[in-house]
Amino acid sequence: MSTLEAPSQKSLMVFSGRAYPELAEEIARSIGVTVTPTSSYAFANGELYVRSEESARGSDAFVIQCHTAPINDWLMEQLILVDALKRASAKRITVVAPFYPYARQDKKSRGREPITARLVADMYKVAGADRIMTVDLHTAQIQGFFDGPVDHLYATPILTSYIAKKYADRDITVVSPDSGRVRLSERWSESLGGTPIAFIHKTRDVTRANHAVANRVVGEVKGRLCILIDDMIDTGGTICQAADALMEDGAADVVIAATHGVLSGPAAERLRASKAREVIITNTLPIPEDMRMDKLTVLSIAPLVGRAIKEIFEDGSVTSLFDGDA
Amino acid sequence: MSTLEAPSQKSLMVFSGRAYPELAEEIARSIGVTVTPTSSYAFANGELYVRSEESARGSDAFVIQCHTAPINDWLMEQLILVDALKRASAKRITVVAPFYPYARQDKKSRGREPITARLVADMYKVAGADRIMTVDLHTAQIQGFFDGPVDHLYATPILTSYIAKKYADRDITVVSPDSGRVRLSERWSESLGGTPIAFIHKTRDVTRANHAVANRVVGEVKGRLCILIDDMIDTGGTICQAADALMEDGAADVVIAATHGVLSGPAAERLRASKAREVIITNTLPIPEDMRMDKLTVLSIAPLVGRAIKEIFEDGSVTSLFDGDA
Amino acid sequence: MSTLEAPSQKSLMVFSGRAYPELAEEIARSIGVTVTPTSSYAFANGELYVRSEESARGSDAFVIQCHTAPINDWLMEQLILVDALKRASAKRITVVAPFYPYARQDKKSRGREPITARLVADMYKVAGADRIMTVDLHTAQIQGFFDGPVDHLYATPILTSYIAKKYADRDITVVSPDSGRVRLSERWSESLGGTPIAFIHKTRDVTRANHAVANRVVGEVKGRLCILIDDMIDTGGTICQAADALMEDGAADVVIAATHGVLSGPAAERLRASKAREVIITNTLPIPEDMRMDKLTVLSIAPLVGRAIKEIFEDGSVTSLFDGDA
Amino acid sequence: MSTLEAPSQKSLMVFSGRAYPELAEEIARSIGVTVTPTSSYAFANGELYVRSEESARGSDAFVIQCHTAPINDWLMEQLILVDALKRASAKRITVVAPFYPYARQDKKSRGREPITARLVADMYKVAGADRIMTVDLHTAQIQGFFDGPVDHLYATPILTSYIAKKYADRDITVVSPDSGRVRLSERWSESLGGTPIAFIHKTRDVTRANHAVANRVVGEVKGRLCILIDDMIDTGGTICQAADALMEDGAADVVIAATHGVLSGPAAERLRASKAREVIITNTLPIPEDMRMDKLTVLSIAPLVGRAIKEIFEDGSVTSLFDGDA
Amino acid sequence: MSTLEAPSQKSLMVFSGRAYPELAEEIARSIGVTVTPTSSYAFANGELYVRSEESARGSDAFVIQCHTAPINDWLMEQLILVDALKRASAKRITVVAPFYPYARQDKKSRGREPITARLVADMYKVAGADRIMTVDLHTAQIQGFFDGPVDHLYATPILTSYIAKKYADRDITVVSPDSGRVRLSERWSESLGGTPIAFIHKTRDVTRANHAVANRVVGEVKGRLCILIDDMIDTGGTICQAADALMEDGAADVVIAATHGVLSGPAAERLRASKAREVIITNTLPIPEDMRMDKLTVLSIAPLVGRAIKEIFEDGSVTSLFDGDA
Amino acid sequence: MSTLEAPSQKSLMVFSGRAYPELAEEIARSIGVTVTPTSSYAFANGELYVRSEESARGSDAFVIQCHTAPINDWLMEQLILVDALKRASAKRITVVAPFYPYARQDKKSRGREPITARLVADMYKVAGADRIMTVDLHTAQIQGFFDGPVDHLYATPILTSYIAKKYADRDITVVSPDSGRVRLSERWSESLGGTPIAFIHKTRDVTRANHAVANRVVGEVKGRLCILIDDMIDTGGTICQAADALMEDGAADVVIAATHGVLSGPAAERLRASKAREVIITNTLPIPEDMRMDKLTVLSIAPLVGRAIKEIFEDGSVTSLFDGDA
Repeated sequence: MSTLEAPSQKSLMVFSGRAYPELAEEIARSIGVTVTPTSSYAFANGELYVRSEESARGSDAFVIQCHTAPINDWLMEQLILVDALKRASAKRITVVAPFYPYARQDKKSRGREPITARLVADMYKVAGADRIMTVDLHTAQIQGFFDGPVDHLYATPILTSYIAKKYADRDITVVSPDSGRVRLSERWSESLGGTPIAFIHKTRDVTRANHAVANRVVGEVKGRLCILIDDMIDTGGTICQAADALMEDGAADVVIAATHGVLSGPAAERLRASKAREVIITNTLPIPEDMRMDKLTVLSIAPLVGRAIKEIFEDGSVTSLFDGDA
Repeated sequence: MSTLEAPSQKSLMVFSGRAYPELAEEIARSIGVTVTPTSSYAFANGELYVRSEESARGSDAFVIQCHTAPINDWLMEQLILVDALKRASAKRITVVAPFYPYARQDKKSRGREPITARLVADMYKVAGADRIMTVDLHTAQIQGFFDGPVDHLYATPILTSYIAKKYADRDITVVSPDSGRVRLSERWSESLGGTPIAFIHKTRDVTRANHAVANRVVGEVKGRLCILIDDMIDTGGTICQAADALMEDGAADVVIAATHGVLSGPAAERLRASKAREVIITNTLPIPEDMRMDKLTVLSIAPLVGRAIKEIFEDGSVTSLFDGDA
Repeated sequence: MSTLEAPSQKSLMVFSGRAYPELAEEIARSIGVTVTPTSSYAFANGELYVRSEESARGSDAFVIQCHTAPINDWLMEQLILVDALKRASAKRITVVAPFYPYARQDKKSRGREPITARLVADMYKVAGADRIMTVDLHTAQIQGFFDGPVDHLYATPILTSYIAKKYADRDITVVSPDSGRVRLSERWSESLGGTPIAFIHKTRDVTRANHAVANRVVGEVKGRLCILIDDMIDTGGTICQAADALMEDGAADVVIAATHGVLSGPAAERLRASKAREVIITNTLPIPEDMRMDKLTVLSIAPLVGRAIKEIFEDGSVTSLFDGDA
Repeated sequence: MSTLEAPSQKSLMVFSGRAYPELAEEIARSIGVTVTPTSSYAFANGELYVRSEESARGSDAFVIQCHTAPINDWLMEQLILVDALKRASAKRITVVAPFYPYARQDKKSRGREPITARLVADMYKVAGADRIMTVDLHTAQIQGFFDGPVDHLYATPILTSYIAKKYADRDITVVSPDSGRVRLSERWSESLGGTPIAFIHKTRDVTRANHAVANRVVGEVKGRLCILIDDMIDTGGTICQAADALMEDGAADVVIAATHGVLSGPAAERLRASKAREVIITNTLPIPEDMRMDKLTVLSIAPLVGRAIKEIFEDGSVTSLFDGDA
Repeated sequence: MSTLEAPSQKSLMVFSGRAYPELAEEIARSIGVTVTPTSSYAFANGELYVRSEESARGSDAFVIQCHTAPINDWLMEQLILVDALKRASAKRITVVAPFYPYARQDKKSRGREPITARLVADMYKVAGADRIMTVDLHTAQIQGFFDGPVDHLYATPILTSYIAKKYADRDITVVSPDSGRVRLSERWSESLGGTPIAFIHKTRDVTRANHAVANRVVGEVKGRLCILIDDMIDTGGTICQAADALMEDGAADVVIAATHGVLSGPAAERLRASKAREVIITNTLPIPEDMRMDKLTVLSIAPLVGRAIKEIFEDGSVTSLFDGDA
Repeated sequence: MSTLEAPSQKSLMVFSGRAYPELAEEIARSIGVTVTPTSSYAFANGELYVRSEESARGSDAFVIQCHTAPINDWLMEQLILVDALKRASAKRITVVAPFYPYARQDKKSRGREPITARLVADMYKVAGADRIMTVDLHTAQIQGFFDGPVDHLYATPILTSYIAKKYADRDITVVSPDSGRVRLSERWSESLGGTPIAFIHKTRDVTRANHAVANRVVGEVKGRLCILIDDMIDTGGTICQAADALMEDGAADVVIAATHGVLSGPAAERLRASKAREVIITNTLPIPEDMRMDKLTVLSIAPLVGRAIKEIFEDGSVTSLFDGDA
């Protein structure tokens, strides 16, 4: 018998879509690699093209994309890149989607609705993704939509340790802007050492016509610093109304904090006009130009994502980054 | 050319596992059929055997099982029956699981946990199920775990209309026993015409050693009838403690209501001892003997499931049973 | 035994994305149905939502979308609608994509390229499509990308019969604009009764620096009416240069004909400026406003698609619409 | 709303490969249809081509092939026909393989062996088969190789009722030619009213070099009519040696009976030379010309297969054809 | 370009369910590792939970479970552990099931039966198992039920070498307790140097009412040591009756030998009462307390399984453990 | 914790079917290994058997087969070998099919045709192939039929560099024998430094009855050396007629060149009789004995395939072998 024998090597490569290359570069830098160059462009009718400029054969490929608007283009670009890497014989492909696209359509609220978050998971799979890495999912159940490992990173500790330090001397109440995030506010409360929690209960005003709604604060907020939390800020409507309601109810101050700054449409304008004294987000999504304002604080997730990629590459433990929770 | 032509017929058949045959019979009766007889038994080492006594070829088969203890046996029995019907050429197989097994393990709360609710969906699929029908899922996202249609029925209206009628003259507050069910309590509140809502905030008592916990009521309950709600009552620990906390905070009365009466271990004892004046559940699971007590009210889901099966068989609309929400 | 027996009914429903609803309506009208209303909209960050306004349970659903720019949005909208109908228990779902998206990325021309046309087929499958209907594929091999039946309709006869009638008295040569469409021009030639064919050979001018190219006409065109054909006109660059080359080589007249009017970017301007006397396309894609010009002729594929849908619904023969070729 | 409604029709079509069209025609005739014409031929390099001459859209298609030599050609022809029918929108495709190909390679007897019978099942699946119908499998476990319904027909009753009638007055022993078919001989014995059984034990002769083997008869055969049974006769080596051993041990007469007449290589010669007085097989495979001999009896399975096809088409019970065993 | 390069390491980890941890520990010890600790428990309603206490990322994980009663719980526990390891990014997962669950339901003996052994294989697959290791399958065809490699280990040599040594001076006949295991007895006979074989033929007594049955010994047993063999002993009914029949027919002694000691229900009592002088099994399943008796000999499979795991981990040859048969 | 840790090794093994072992040996030699011995044979009824003589556990296995007549046997042999290696725990299996079988049936030219090239890709997948390596596909779209990486090697440069050298001083025109290969002739023209191109237009002679056809040369050939190219030569009919047509039109000389020498039926006779002065092919398929003739030149692809296998094994770049095109 005569066979060729060789020791196995493994090789980490980082790829990026065009939605937010700065984040991919920051992540790559934090692990000491560079983003592999690709040629990526759109044809006149909008069809996209992506090709790696370098051989990816046998590589452990991480494909980063940030799903900001135009979200369907960026999703499709990432899928095409995954397909290209699969056909180019990458050994393992990890989709890195810090903000999971369509996470809010994770169930049928009414008959005949789609479950687009599951569809997205299946599209990643069919394109060739072996694994997904994401940050602070809208609901943790989305991990179960993908038929394979999902590394779910928590950015919340980045936010809470910033707040714990900056507002150490204040009486804090953690507030959920609606009834669906009370559990989340409870977790924040624990991270902040056991503060009270509250939430905003939207109630229909029965004395008036049908869609009039009142925001009723449930819980103790008077004279306190209210940390108004959510997983994402999209158009900012709900959260800014909640901030106003808190101030009206006698809150001393309001700080808004969320992992994902979707920041669509009127978000910048609303946040600027809001009585909240600070708005804290991470850079899972690019920050629109019109969001530059003094009260905005952006914390970077790049070191966290970078460390997780390294653990994955080296068969270490991602769970250990979060004291067993991941 | 000579082919055989014939009009297509369709034929509805109802099958049942052995966990709770009475419910299957009640459902079948409500649509005017009988449960198809099967031979089902366990071998000495616990391996199960199921076989339909009648031909199921070409049928639209509904396979009902209620996932009470010993839950793994009943799950396996249902899977084996689905496999047998698939191989016996049933045309379409709908798993009817009023209480979805392992619904609480629907996400990884910590690293290295399973997502058993997804595993169960995949096992149904691989056994041959085309569709799933279930009632009041622990989290609606579980619909997305199954690669096919899920008919998600709502039993909550059965509970709320009973309460609305019986306690029409009372000042009601809907209470969630913890921070994770506040959204659910909001939905109950809407069904009951817009009552206040409240929840129990479990806080660690920082003055004492590490696992001591205090139940703090957030929201207005004094002098009111508190409807303490959840999707299921398992050992009854959380909900009975919540009932006590409410009474201590001055609630006039407490009524406990939940869709699924899992009622394991000390549940009967705890509920009997609890200050709650009434406990309302449905029969998605069989009621243990020791649960017979005056304050227990059991409402039947059989008519609802029966109507849904008929709509499915006749290509009608299940959504229409819930005013567009299903 | 007691089962419910009923005769099987089937029910045809037509759905449409928002890319080109006029075509879907014309198709539906031709079969005597109306397009089922949906609620479709985009969230602020570009995520799409689609839901059928009516029950689709048990239906034979045809989901029409025309893949014009912004093509990724329209593709995603169609996939979401397919997912929603699958979960709403449609019995069979046929994707109708008159212009198959990403058809030109049907192979790896270079290493590390994606095969996006296959990816699209897999995404349709995973969303829930049972079948695909499309018109004049860029390459017929794309049929093999989908794991299921593809009804491939031919619009070419609509174009050739129009030309045969209008230019009956002319000496025609069918011309391919490059070397890749000579087989197609041969088929046109056969439909037009056996005309000569020609093609444009692009050659690098070796006397000059590297990207200069000359268009050399191969075949007989002098004094003849040249029908310059292709499957699609995108930016119009190649085909307009070909038209000029033909006129320079002494063609009497040039008529441009293609099934798909992609008509991106400078297409309208180029076609207007071209010496071609007539431009003939079909309405597989919406016609941009700036394309309205006297020399443009648009032939409708709606009757063809309508007839094919009816044959499919009635288990007739689509092949018979094309004398055995389909 | 306006949809097209129509009653569902179903239509049975029978297709045949070219291995043994006479059997397919006999089966078709027994149900009152004709075999749908196909154009089938081989290219010069052996690649096969098959196409149905008639539309199969929506049909319940039964694709019959008999896997005689050259077996790989006939298997491939059947797979191609299944693929063609799938793409031509047949509604349901049943592979009819009276002699399941590669049934003997149903396990790994040694390390690194293939399990070709499973591979064949997967190839049928991937080509588009929804179901398989077959006759007297070499081992019943092969049913479990296919991911879908398998209708396993029993031809043994055809053989035993022929023998029971013809040899009613004889003292019968059912004999297995080796240790692997003793269970089968027990089943024959039961069908014949409870006869004794025997088998041939092949033992290595330890007094001589290594591959010498003696055939030792275990069981009572002296003066009796030995029915020597197997599921198939391939080259006839084992069974003819067994017949000789029985005669040597004092059997009065030997009758050989098997479902499948593979009859390869020297089979005809060996059977002709054998002392067996009659050889009884069915026509699951075509009978080679050189097998025509007086002692050969061929019983037809066509009526059985025909009845099973009709039961399947009409959603009746195939099991009922065998008193519950099928 | 800058990528991270590193040599690949591989890491073997052994996991165990709670059915028979002693065997897993013995196996682990034999390879010089310890069983990775897990937290495993049942909720009050019987739902199971399993989580690895240590990171399994990138590991070559072997998941051992012994499928004794309550068999469905142990099967489910193993599936959940496999799911958890898959989601925790184990590189390769091998299910080790020394006694394959539901192996006896490996075919449809009658219409409408399940093929549960195939269902089990599919459930392992869907949970995330890449490979299966098992010992002495009930039928070797079960290897073909799993879509991937199955390492099928033979424990029979452990049994035969024990017998060959202990009973070297006796005249042995190997006896199958029924007609279905005659092939197996032939293999034992070969391992023991070519002894005679015999089997028990169960015949209906035609002179009496319908289910009376006589056990007729076929083959030579008088004055000989009968080794009565089977793959498993469940309730012991058949094998103890066979032992009695052999003694009645003049056997000098009976020794019972089988790989799997299922030993359900009355097995202990029957074996104790039986005239067999020795009962030999292996420890593929835990030995019930009431089975402790002098005539019971238990041989360990741990060294065999341990060696096989090492060969798999080191890309050696499992086949070589059995002289080419595995 | 105690786990076993070891560095990963990888091991390249080359396997070969029996169609053309000489090529496999030449390839293996070029990488410095030998072909792993297998036992391969056919049973009397044509069923094939293959088993590796050596352990393939953990190997990077390349399975070479050349698909010449009897093509279905060789295809099946390769599939069985892949299945055997999968079950023997090979780590990665690459099918090497220098001439892709059934490549010409890559689309439906008429209704109800199969797409056998896709079926073949799916059969490779289901048997266990992870990757495919092939040479000069009939159409490049076939790459998209396989759900995984396809390494598509180009043999054309081997042919063109031979021609460029041998006929350096001649005036060359590259000619396509029909309208479907004009694009290919354009690529050849580019490789040969920009020669003119031409093609043969088959036209129906309208003056005579229906299948009479004339071969019309389109393009400049008079007095030139015509390189008549195609991807394969099967029966040689089209290409020999084309050679004659070129000579009649005044070509100075004709050289025939193609990658694949299928050379079925009358090919040898036709090529011998043809006026072409040289016929150049590669050894992707074995050369029939009757093809030995002076004007035949066979160039070896073994070094190319060997280099590609090594690049794959070493995670190098196959694309780099072709300046970025592969």
